Amino acid sequence: MKNQKIPRATARRLPIYYRYLKLLLDEGTTRISSVDLAEIVKIDAATIRRDFSCFGALGKRGYGYEVSELINFFSGELNQDTLASVALIGLGNLGHALLNFKFQKTSNVRISAVFEVNPELINTIQNGVPVFSMDELEEQIAEQRIDVAMLTVPADAAQSIAARLEDSGIKGILNFTPLRLDVSKQIHVQNVDLTNELQTLLYFIDNDISN
Amino acid sequence: MKNQKIPRATARRLPIYYRYLKLLLDEGTTRISSVDLAEIVKIDAATIRRDFSCFGALGKRGYGYEVSELINFFSGELNQDTLASVALIGLGNLGHALLNFKFQKTSNVRISAVFEVNPELINTIQNGVPVFSMDELEEQIAEQRIDVAMLTVPADAAQSIAARLEDSGIKGILNFTPLRLDVSKQIHVQNVDLTNELQTLLYFIDNDISN
Repeated sequence: MKNQKIPRATARRLPIYYRYLKLLLDEGTTRISSVDLAEIVKIDAATIRRDFSCFGALGKRGYGYEVSELINFFSGELNQDTLASVALIGLGNLGHALLNFKFQKTSNVRISAVFEVNPELINTIQNGVPVFSMDELEEQIAEQRIDVAMLTVPADAAQSIAARLEDSGIKGILNFTPLRLDVSKQIHVQNVDLTNELQTLLYFIDNDISN
Repeated sequence: MKNQKIPRATARRLPIYYRYLKLLLDEGTTRISSVDLAEIVKIDAATIRRDFSCFGALGKRGYGYEVSELINFFSGELNQDTLASVALIGLGNLGHALLNFKFQKTSNVRISAVFEVNPELINTIQNGVPVFSMDELEEQIAEQRIDVAMLTVPADAAQSIAARLEDSGIKGILNFTPLRLDVSKQIHVQNVDLTNELQTLLYFIDNDISN
């Protein structure tokens, strides 16, 4: 049974927990308290305990949590047994950086197709991944059963591509463009807006809003 | 007087509001309702009204908000009159992408110094920005009065550089490494963890957690 009720903020922290717990186990740590884990992942201990309790993982006072139990549990939650294929749309500077990023090393995600408009890149292999023409978008997404696309195209092309992705049956978009995409509620959009991140950080500094 | 009490989530939305309100004004829109703005920025209308009311901006029923008033207000909040200088640390693939990113076009931020260990890059100019040796970190940060650093170095170098940044008096770090940095509470750290973003998106899809 999949837990449907966990808060969005908790869900966002799962991959962090998972990654650090694996590191801890590799280093030989078999159990850990929420206070010690808090120190490592930089999330406060009360939040960790609340998050873990959402999943029914209850540490014992004076003992803490079994690291391997937590890992097994989060691994299942995060579907680590299945490799997810992702499409990268747009092979500009950021697209290249994402293609070089070793997602697969630390997660169950791999980029399996790149889509580009530049004729010099189409039909080449970049970092082991085939580059397709944008014309092949719908066909490849269906054929490769791709559920998620990373969008790194110019802002003025973003909305029309998002609409095509929606029609192709994509389920989620990691949106690196500054545009807020207009897609149906069924599609999960995660915005990674770098200018925004930087401006927000400056705002926090100016106003001394605590972390 | 700077408002110190606004929620962190509200602060994160300010740059989005600001950017879209400017676009609207450019297109000749002089007033807008929270419902119409919600449609554009993909944030629900009740949240917009609550956010705006934090700043004392109260729309009139049946009239909405004056766009130029909101812009003036957010411009002040976001310190748009001052150009903030930012250091980029690490000029790998992601560093290059960030350097090519036109932050200055849509915000009051510019990258004014790059720091690298690669001797072939040190003392060159990349995209109009000088590349310094890591040895010059402290000196240049002080001289250029840089408050913010974007960290795109390998994970195993991240913590020691973060410590040096802290000693240099930096106020904020946009952390692109997967490492959770150990710095004092006075330093604002904004984590942009791309593997995490992707894993969270997959988790939302698998569990159908709504946006």
